[in-house]
Amino acid sequence: MSRVHRFRDGMWEDIEIRPYKPDPKDRFRNIARMVLAGDTSEEQIQFQVRYFVIEPGGYSSLERHQHEHVVIVLEGEGEVLLEDQVIPIQPFDLIRIGPWTLHRFRNRSSTERFGFLCVVDRMRDRPQIPSAEEIEELKRDPNLRDIVDPEDSPGSTGE
Amino acid sequence: MSRVHRFRDGMWEDIEIRPYKPDPKDRFRNIARMVLAGDTSEEQIQFQVRYFVIEPGGYSSLERHQHEHVVIVLEGEGEVLLEDQVIPIQPFDLIRIGPWTLHRFRNRSSTERFGFLCVVDRMRDRPQIPSAEEIEELKRDPNLRDIVDPEDSPGSTGE
Repeated sequence: MSRVHRFRDGMWEDIEIRPYKPDPKDRFRNIARMVLAGDTSEEQIQFQVRYFVIEPGGYSSLERHQHEHVVIVLEGEGEVLLEDQVIPIQPFDLIRIGPWTLHRFRNRSSTERFGFLCVVDRMRDRPQIPSAEEIEELKRDPNLRDIVDPEDSPGSTGE
Repeated sequence: MSRVHRFRDGMWEDIEIRPYKPDPKDRFRNIARMVLAGDTSEEQIQFQVRYFVIEPGGYSSLERHQHEHVVIVLEGEGEVLLEDQVIPIQPFDLIRIGPWTLHRFRNRSSTERFGFLCVVDRMRDRPQIPSAEEIEELKRDPNLRDIVDPEDSPGSTGE
């Protein structure tokens, strides 16, 4: 099973592009997922390596969980919410997301895609989504309002 | 422990640069190691994310082991030996190295550094080095001679 998967035209040879999440009640937009390693029963590794691509206007689910994320940006310009901070990130920045840290990734560019590797334990808990009440509370902080509710922000196209 | 480590001037904030391997009998050259995740007892993840930088003229140890490598190139132009194939690799190529595959990474550039992420299980076996007899046998293949014994190759500076 040793081999090279070449990166070409924004994807890897023989790695499929998948929907981000199966559950439509998680709020997200313009995001796709590739699993680079750890997806099959033959593989004996204890981790998964995923790649997420967020197109302009897009963002990941606002969530928290016990398991940790190790993220490395490869493409574009984005930002990450880490609990109560919004931090701009760019290629090859490393983002550590520890247990139960509220987080969301968002593309900051209106023209370029934003892509990042995310390594996680293969055995892990399911993400939890904040309640509507918690989201309303977070939106009271002007620094967090846009990333917590991107569709309601001035930059939103309202599509 | 959630935070961003910015990538600047070829390294990450608050991540130290270390020697590649402690054991000088493993043959390698001009290579350094950074551990981006999974190095401390507080971290609960089951994997390690390392970054290896190989300067011009450099190469990693020729080795094989039970545990798997998931490698993603970030910088430069290199090549990888996978058992009996030598494959050129460049940014963001993905290299899967399965159990017991003989492998070595080598920088192909005489001016630029070559760098790659390597994700492994945190609990893993120690690498094994081929015997002198096996190396002599491999060198009989003209395609493998240079990467199996880089110091003996025409491109070597003989330093």
